[in-house]
Amino acid sequence: MTEDRNNGSPLRPAAPPKTGTLRIGIAGLGTVGASAIKVLGDHADLLAARCGRPMQVTAVSARNRDRDRGIDLAAFRWFDDPVALAVDPSVDVVVEVIGGSDGPARDVVEAAIGAGKSVVTANKALMALHGPDLARKADAAGVTLAYEAAVAGGIPAIKGIREGLAANVFSSVVGILNGTSNFILTEMRETGRDFNDVLAEAQQLGYAEADPTFDVDGIDAAHKLALLAAIAFNADVDFGSLHIEGIRQISALDIAYADELGFRIKLLAIARNDDAGLELRVNPCMVPQDRPIAKVEGVFNAVQASGDHVGQVMMVGQGAGGGPTASAVVADLVDIARGLRVPTFGIPADALQPATVLPTTSRSGEYYVRLMVVDRPGVIADITAIMRDQSVSVESFLQRGRSPGDAVPLIIVTHDTTEAAMDRVLSAIGDLDHVVEPPKMIRIERMVV
Amino acid sequence: MTEDRNNGSPLRPAAPPKTGTLRIGIAGLGTVGASAIKVLGDHADLLAARCGRPMQVTAVSARNRDRDRGIDLAAFRWFDDPVALAVDPSVDVVVEVIGGSDGPARDVVEAAIGAGKSVVTANKALMALHGPDLARKADAAGVTLAYEAAVAGGIPAIKGIREGLAANVFSSVVGILNGTSNFILTEMRETGRDFNDVLAEAQQLGYAEADPTFDVDGIDAAHKLALLAAIAFNADVDFGSLHIEGIRQISALDIAYADELGFRIKLLAIARNDDAGLELRVNPCMVPQDRPIAKVEGVFNAVQASGDHVGQVMMVGQGAGGGPTASAVVADLVDIARGLRVPTFGIPADALQPATVLPTTSRSGEYYVRLMVVDRPGVIADITAIMRDQSVSVESFLQRGRSPGDAVPLIIVTHDTTEAAMDRVLSAIGDLDHVVEPPKMIRIERMVV
Repeated sequence: MTEDRNNGSPLRPAAPPKTGTLRIGIAGLGTVGASAIKVLGDHADLLAARCGRPMQVTAVSARNRDRDRGIDLAAFRWFDDPVALAVDPSVDVVVEVIGGSDGPARDVVEAAIGAGKSVVTANKALMALHGPDLARKADAAGVTLAYEAAVAGGIPAIKGIREGLAANVFSSVVGILNGTSNFILTEMRETGRDFNDVLAEAQQLGYAEADPTFDVDGIDAAHKLALLAAIAFNADVDFGSLHIEGIRQISALDIAYADELGFRIKLLAIARNDDAGLELRVNPCMVPQDRPIAKVEGVFNAVQASGDHVGQVMMVGQGAGGGPTASAVVADLVDIARGLRVPTFGIPADALQPATVLPTTSRSGEYYVRLMVVDRPGVIADITAIMRDQSVSVESFLQRGRSPGDAVPLIIVTHDTTEAAMDRVLSAIGDLDHVVEPPKMIRIERMVV
Repeated sequence: MTEDRNNGSPLRPAAPPKTGTLRIGIAGLGTVGASAIKVLGDHADLLAARCGRPMQVTAVSARNRDRDRGIDLAAFRWFDDPVALAVDPSVDVVVEVIGGSDGPARDVVEAAIGAGKSVVTANKALMALHGPDLARKADAAGVTLAYEAAVAGGIPAIKGIREGLAANVFSSVVGILNGTSNFILTEMRETGRDFNDVLAEAQQLGYAEADPTFDVDGIDAAHKLALLAAIAFNADVDFGSLHIEGIRQISALDIAYADELGFRIKLLAIARNDDAGLELRVNPCMVPQDRPIAKVEGVFNAVQASGDHVGQVMMVGQGAGGGPTASAVVADLVDIARGLRVPTFGIPADALQPATVLPTTSRSGEYYVRLMVVDRPGVIADITAIMRDQSVSVESFLQRGRSPGDAVPLIIVTHDTTEAAMDRVLSAIGDLDHVVEPPKMIRIERMVV
């Protein structure tokens, strides 16, 4: 993957020029596009010193030319058609911040690569669904496809893992990758309120979208996880194979019990390598309260990688917002201006191996279970008999407040067991007459910094 | 600083070859050198895939050829003289893991650069004292001088800040940069024991050297801070201008009071940019207990950078040990093999500006003060009068346990004030008859993640 080799192939278009002004075309002028223009303008001299050459936005494209974005677009050439911007000879590098896994965003990226241009994108959905395919095209064209802004906002997670920890075989990458969900969980804990109430507040504050599905149902975090897993495990990840749960089912009760048990509930994205394959999951987890990751609160994100030589490394920062995301976009541009090029997922795309994704039943670990049971003699005997039959052993039972004849919460924490056994336990417990709601299960994750 | 420009200069020696096997010479076979050989051997295929070319150790040098290091040296060419290794044509890149700010380590690095070879070093003392000078030589030679392993062990802190956050103007970089000190402070808190007692244990466990000066007196952390400050602020830092305090003066009493006040005591390395200059300090600080950095315990390190667009980013990981340090050394080698080159301190060395270092008296912030006072009427009146005269206002007084006529601890936490005023307060208080020990002062730092 060295420059020399790429230049040596007559079939490949020329790489972008490595000296002189790097001319940037920006497709998409939402918050991130406008913030990137601001960073590039504010810090032009500093960036030129750091890159050894000037960078300059020369062209922009968006759906609406007249919208007030708080930036002066007069100095830039306007394109109604972002694909025309991508292939225009006045543009050396294309920044795609349109969004969406297909449609114009994908067209722009493919057109730019086809024209022999490096691309910087903040588009997690596009990269999660089409990353390996686009990476193959970028390799063939001898250009960079950079996407630091697509994972964990301003945190240099891609660079950290793909370059900074490149000496390691990874056993896991774990992250808090969705700021909206983390904000909601933090608020729920601090105020004791329930999910829907806090979601409504987050929407008012602009921390959650009108349609919060991608954020609170784990899909956004899963997009990012797919990318981190591809890098850490040099794997071609089929996004459809990820197990994805969001935080809608987390109640104020669970958060209070977590606290009592010494845990915090976090929506974790987990990629773990086992000899048999990859565990790829986004789900709420309980993590020990005394770990740094438990203190990653509000809109902050965290990414933790475990490497065989380095041990555990964690990075924490703001996972969203114009400034942090633009910081990552511009860092990618700095790399390109400096002439640094690394394969999209750390090795040539053709060498990526299809990931074997394990079923969730193969997980082993501890579990928190909350049951709503009618408070009457014999309940615990029935439950413990089921657990014994599945060889699931109990670490603790918690029952606070008694109310004979009424439904009360009963908390069980298990010792290490398999999720297959837990599934059978939960199914059998759910069938008991005096268990009046489906059991709630939350996985306990201790292997975090 | 692009490859093209360097290659364009007829005065510069040729850069190392960018294709074919990268031949590595390792000068120094202590823990880090031996661990690097192990990583390069164990992961040879993976590294070749990541680099697009093989890497191979071809030559080694150390003082004693016969010492058992648990690795087979038969495959490597042996050099008694590390400088001969550095200039030998069979070596493309030199790894300097001898240590020491001068002597053979410096000779090796200078010889390698002089021979047109890139260098990877783990040597914080060398880089802190001679970094800008060596960087100028590397620039002139068109080679890389890489030193990720010199700061915070396995944490990709240099890469994170110099590349991953390159879009930002930094206001501060703050770190827990010495694992030995952090281990001692953690043990002191968890066991209630005093410094000397825990230091002796750390020495037995191998976490502290027989001569612990560099670690517990803040010098090692200061070396690393000088490097982080050079990168973040593109500054030529005079190491002698840093304010350095270690942890010997921290007592079990202070740790207990910190806990009661909602803080943890950490040895922080702080580089903060003010319009007037740089604050560059290593000293014990109290940080709020509920922040992630407060939970960075034991031998872990943390580096936190505050950028104008990204906000605060923190990286946590193991700051020492063979595996983590070798991880960083090999990551630097991967960069070189991939053909990535970034100026040593982020901009050409000639463009570094001498740092204007502020006196400690210019700090403003809150302070914790512990006095040992004879418990008699009028003491607090005398103290508060002194503080009033210097316009230092009190946030809280704490006095636990009364013992009329005996010396008891009196704790004062101030509101924001200047260190110049605090110095005058402490001097006047120290002169009071009923204050029986010199006052202990610990700075409170709230601007941390």
